[in-house]
Amino acid sequence: MSLDESKLKKKAKKALNPKEVTVDVATQQMLEKAQHDGVETIFDRAVTMKACNIGAQGTCCKVCSQGPCRLPLPKGGIEGDDTRKGLCGATPETIAARNFARMVAVGSAAHGDHGRGVVETFIAMANRETEDYSVHDTEKLMEVAQYLNVPTTIMVEGEDGVKRPEMRETYELARDVGQKALAQWTSQEGEILSALQAPPARLEVWRDLDVVPRGIDREIVELLHRTHMGVDQDYRNLVKQCSRAALADGWGGSMLATDLQDIMFGTPYPMQGEINLGVLKEDHVNILVHGHEPLLSEMIVVASQEPEMLEYAKQKGAKGILLAGMCCTANEILVRHGLPTAGNYLQQELAIVTGAVEAMVVDVQCIMENIANVAECYHTKIITTNPRAMIESGNTTHIEFDEHSALEDARKIVRQAVENFPNRRPGVMIPNAKEPMVAGFSKEAIKYHLGGAFRGSYTPLNDNIINGRIRGIAGVVGCNNARTMHDSGHLTVIKELLKQDVIVLSTGCSAMACGKAGLLAPESAKVYCGPGLAEVCETVGIPPVLHMGACVDNSRILMAATEVVKAGGLGKDISELPAAGSAPEWMSEKAIAIGHYFVASGVYTVFGNGLPVTGSPKFQKFLFEELENLYGGKWDLELDPYAHARKMIEHINKKRAALGLDKGKERVLVDMAARRELDAA
Amino acid sequence: MSLDESKLKKKAKKALNPKEVTVDVATQQMLEKAQHDGVETIFDRAVTMKACNIGAQGTCCKVCSQGPCRLPLPKGGIEGDDTRKGLCGATPETIAARNFARMVAVGSAAHGDHGRGVVETFIAMANRETEDYSVHDTEKLMEVAQYLNVPTTIMVEGEDGVKRPEMRETYELARDVGQKALAQWTSQEGEILSALQAPPARLEVWRDLDVVPRGIDREIVELLHRTHMGVDQDYRNLVKQCSRAALADGWGGSMLATDLQDIMFGTPYPMQGEINLGVLKEDHVNILVHGHEPLLSEMIVVASQEPEMLEYAKQKGAKGILLAGMCCTANEILVRHGLPTAGNYLQQELAIVTGAVEAMVVDVQCIMENIANVAECYHTKIITTNPRAMIESGNTTHIEFDEHSALEDARKIVRQAVENFPNRRPGVMIPNAKEPMVAGFSKEAIKYHLGGAFRGSYTPLNDNIINGRIRGIAGVVGCNNARTMHDSGHLTVIKELLKQDVIVLSTGCSAMACGKAGLLAPESAKVYCGPGLAEVCETVGIPPVLHMGACVDNSRILMAATEVVKAGGLGKDISELPAAGSAPEWMSEKAIAIGHYFVASGVYTVFGNGLPVTGSPKFQKFLFEELENLYGGKWDLELDPYAHARKMIEHINKKRAALGLDKGKERVLVDMAARRELDAA
Repeated sequence: MSLDESKLKKKAKKALNPKEVTVDVATQQMLEKAQHDGVETIFDRAVTMKACNIGAQGTCCKVCSQGPCRLPLPKGGIEGDDTRKGLCGATPETIAARNFARMVAVGSAAHGDHGRGVVETFIAMANRETEDYSVHDTEKLMEVAQYLNVPTTIMVEGEDGVKRPEMRETYELARDVGQKALAQWTSQEGEILSALQAPPARLEVWRDLDVVPRGIDREIVELLHRTHMGVDQDYRNLVKQCSRAALADGWGGSMLATDLQDIMFGTPYPMQGEINLGVLKEDHVNILVHGHEPLLSEMIVVASQEPEMLEYAKQKGAKGILLAGMCCTANEILVRHGLPTAGNYLQQELAIVTGAVEAMVVDVQCIMENIANVAECYHTKIITTNPRAMIESGNTTHIEFDEHSALEDARKIVRQAVENFPNRRPGVMIPNAKEPMVAGFSKEAIKYHLGGAFRGSYTPLNDNIINGRIRGIAGVVGCNNARTMHDSGHLTVIKELLKQDVIVLSTGCSAMACGKAGLLAPESAKVYCGPGLAEVCETVGIPPVLHMGACVDNSRILMAATEVVKAGGLGKDISELPAAGSAPEWMSEKAIAIGHYFVASGVYTVFGNGLPVTGSPKFQKFLFEELENLYGGKWDLELDPYAHARKMIEHINKKRAALGLDKGKERVLVDMAARRELDAA
Repeated sequence: MSLDESKLKKKAKKALNPKEVTVDVATQQMLEKAQHDGVETIFDRAVTMKACNIGAQGTCCKVCSQGPCRLPLPKGGIEGDDTRKGLCGATPETIAARNFARMVAVGSAAHGDHGRGVVETFIAMANRETEDYSVHDTEKLMEVAQYLNVPTTIMVEGEDGVKRPEMRETYELARDVGQKALAQWTSQEGEILSALQAPPARLEVWRDLDVVPRGIDREIVELLHRTHMGVDQDYRNLVKQCSRAALADGWGGSMLATDLQDIMFGTPYPMQGEINLGVLKEDHVNILVHGHEPLLSEMIVVASQEPEMLEYAKQKGAKGILLAGMCCTANEILVRHGLPTAGNYLQQELAIVTGAVEAMVVDVQCIMENIANVAECYHTKIITTNPRAMIESGNTTHIEFDEHSALEDARKIVRQAVENFPNRRPGVMIPNAKEPMVAGFSKEAIKYHLGGAFRGSYTPLNDNIINGRIRGIAGVVGCNNARTMHDSGHLTVIKELLKQDVIVLSTGCSAMACGKAGLLAPESAKVYCGPGLAEVCETVGIPPVLHMGACVDNSRILMAATEVVKAGGLGKDISELPAAGSAPEWMSEKAIAIGHYFVASGVYTVFGNGLPVTGSPKFQKFLFEELENLYGGKWDLELDPYAHARKMIEHINKKRAALGLDKGKERVLVDMAARRELDAA
């Protein structure tokens, strides 16, 4: 370490005031404990390490070894012609667009590859190669079969000699669904079938622009190819391929992952849960499942509840086994089992700092490498499980998870955790902070909640948007980011939206921030709502922020938006809805893929926390303005969370006005006749 | 432009001495003309713009928006433990390995997507949807059918009632071959079939390491996923997936592209050609095809030779039409038609500077965006043709090329060039520099050349390696790079190798550098050879450097190496051969993919010009040392071209010693009995 660095580190330890970096009390407490224990976390490094300013502008080009070429925006901006060029002549537009495209490619690849794993497990299940998984939701299986054009019935001749359609055997049907699902990854031409669920008007936009994805893998690989040195050097053309790849994510890889997970593990319906580090129990074996895929965590849920395992835990001196989630794995087990959530992305190191975690079991995505270092200071075992994701450290254990021996693998993992319980070191401290919450609002659950079991419908939502009690819909999603105050962006934006009667759909770390702040519990959240939204939520019995699942479940938001369009009265396309998207604390490349599929789906989408496009004003203008003419949706960037929410509300108001809803509550409710007319339109 | 920048530019114009940046006389002349004409080229920008030192070390991490995090190697290196970490805890190893992996992914995607386009055209041809393409090489079709497990015969009942095998109809066979080829992109499990052509011992290495590719697209997408924030954080595990993706390139996407191109356009056999800017003709319409794919250029070859077109050219005042190539498109039309080559990568702007180029027709990869700016100073039309690759400039024309209307599209392009002839501006100057060369050494051609039509065999090559006349084989390939003296690295390394009796297989811009320096013509090249190599070349009638084609044709080198293994006497695996690989002036991410598939195929591979791994000594050690224990091949980096060649020769000597060949010429030639034994082994 150089002198300069050690100075910086000293400065960091002095400088880091936990209250200045997070609004979450549990996080503040654990940061203090980390400081006391001499453990360095991402919060410290965010102080000691400056981000590269040029990279953050998106104008650093590493695509060939003649560079990296750096084209920072001159102080004071560009006067006259922008003559900046990389060695090859690449403009700031080309460079920023290529960097943007690579983020879309990697993000789509992450979701796509997650989805591929789900399909593989699904096929193994359908073939009954594994007994550990089964079809839990046959209704969803039918629905997926339908959009994949898999026949759900066969003609069977009755005793009377007449042929009648009969439902196909479940696993036989699942086999065909699995194969057809996989074909969405491998197809080379035509259109992926899951995308055809979009509203017809939206599909028409995509077809006009020639961006309906041909196959998930193909679009990602072609996008990568285009970013190679000297290939696509027209940012508009690059963004066109970004749209194909991103739509292949949102309406493809992510959507299929979600749907097949629902079939295997059940479609989420609202259930009570608890969130924050306070869910850990001092006298229990605490196991955290962290990452993104439910394939393994579902098995750990089972294994950790088996009587033999609980008995084993007691033998080791524990009162029981507490299984909780972190990051999106938490969301997966929360929305399907109501299992507790320990925290979101920026809390992963701090969960270990409690000293109470016997094992942190990780799969893929958003796993900080530093958890291995933090674990070294306590007794926690870091167990990697996915062949795609290992950590190079003497301090991690790899127990590879295979869908064919899923439950047995899970048991092995849980046993290791139990055996680690006696190794706890002194100084365990679990923050006294947890919140109750309701989560699990799939598109199906929303329908059910709004209309009841027999008349499930989005119409009541639409009616309340039309009558102005609800101003509009916001999707607020995304990560945490150590460069911005933990959870604060999410909470400020969302509270501002609620105040203005905007109902919020949320996923991922954003939903978790809401949970910790009480926004996912109808009672505690009510006080943040404008009067109209409060009234609707109270009537229907929902919180004003609907937790829809993991970040891969953002496709649920697309489908919910599609349901709203279908229910009528708010235009024919997602782009006509009084709706907006937001990722106030985005961090990962998946967020960029998600942002772009929202934009390409017609949604005005605002990011916080900087976007690596600001070094190319022309490219930025294309994303922030011109895209709207093509897709009806567009990108925006707003660091100030109040202004961020304001921009979303203004957009919602603009869309209300375009729909003739700007007269708010004075407007007469559409009657059935009017609705029929709207439906026919 | 800021004051600082304009100062730098002035400095550049003063500072740039053409003789200091290229050894190629034509390039020197055109650089002088560019200076005179006030045209800025990549050579100028290489002076005015410094590469980012941290990026060049491979330790700048842009994979999430908490960064970019920069972990430069401290001056003086690391003392004690390396405590550098990104915000998330990513080590220099993780960061450098992820960056490396992304280069492999993009490089493999570039070749893979090129190959995909070839397969699509091949299928259209097989279906007779286009008359513009046809099967030119049925022997190759049979060969490809065999390795793709497509039956080449059907049983037909004769008049005598006995069924006998008959060859299948060519296009029917081609249809099956096309579909089976495409399946190598889309398969999800098992092994890609083209890779099974590797020597059995090599295949065993791959199977032991579990790196045989499952499907081209899948491996690329999974590799990308693994580089996402918080996924694979074990450089060894990342490199494992790099191997799958790179092998899916070399033994998959690239190999299939080459083979199907050979079927459609003919397998290359040596022919005479000419190279350097001097091939342009002042009184002709000069058309340059630039990029990488032969699909379009093959059609332009046809269109530019049609009598009506020549007549049209005469109407416009030209004596004829000169079609020449740049970059790898040049190699494609050279090795199949003997058409002239205007120059390699760093000459693309300078070809326009001649003022004599009516149209530069580009497809994909390595097209400098700046050609649009240079063209603005002359009359040259830049015509983009591939939907994947456009240039955002008012100064380019896009004429999209479709395989279904291929020849008509080509005619449109040629007509535009002809019509542009009268627009030439004063000051045309074509350098008086061109060299004759022989090119087109496919693996089949080498076999033929060594053994004749009826006894085609690699045995004479092996015999001469065994008897020491030839010390070994080097594959010297790769790009130009504006950060290193143009062509100098290639030529110095290769001349050093020749001097030591090492025969050189070359492709891409490296082969072109050789051509311009006379190393591809038997007569002029002879003087550079050691006595043994000179003797063999003279006997067989080949130059000591064999031009095997474009960079996608590096798979020909793999197959040539496989043929050498098969011919016997030099071990059972590519890794046992006295052979080495080199890319002295690499620039693109394709080069990294190629380098890695050579290494994973068992070849010691040295790169010049810097590798973005030096910021992580541990990762570098893994690539440069430890990989050899796994794959038999390893990476190396050597900037000094003399030392670079010396390292290759040392490696070749080491391999000779291991084979017991270190006694050189004194060793007795293996007789037929011994050979039979070797063959049996």
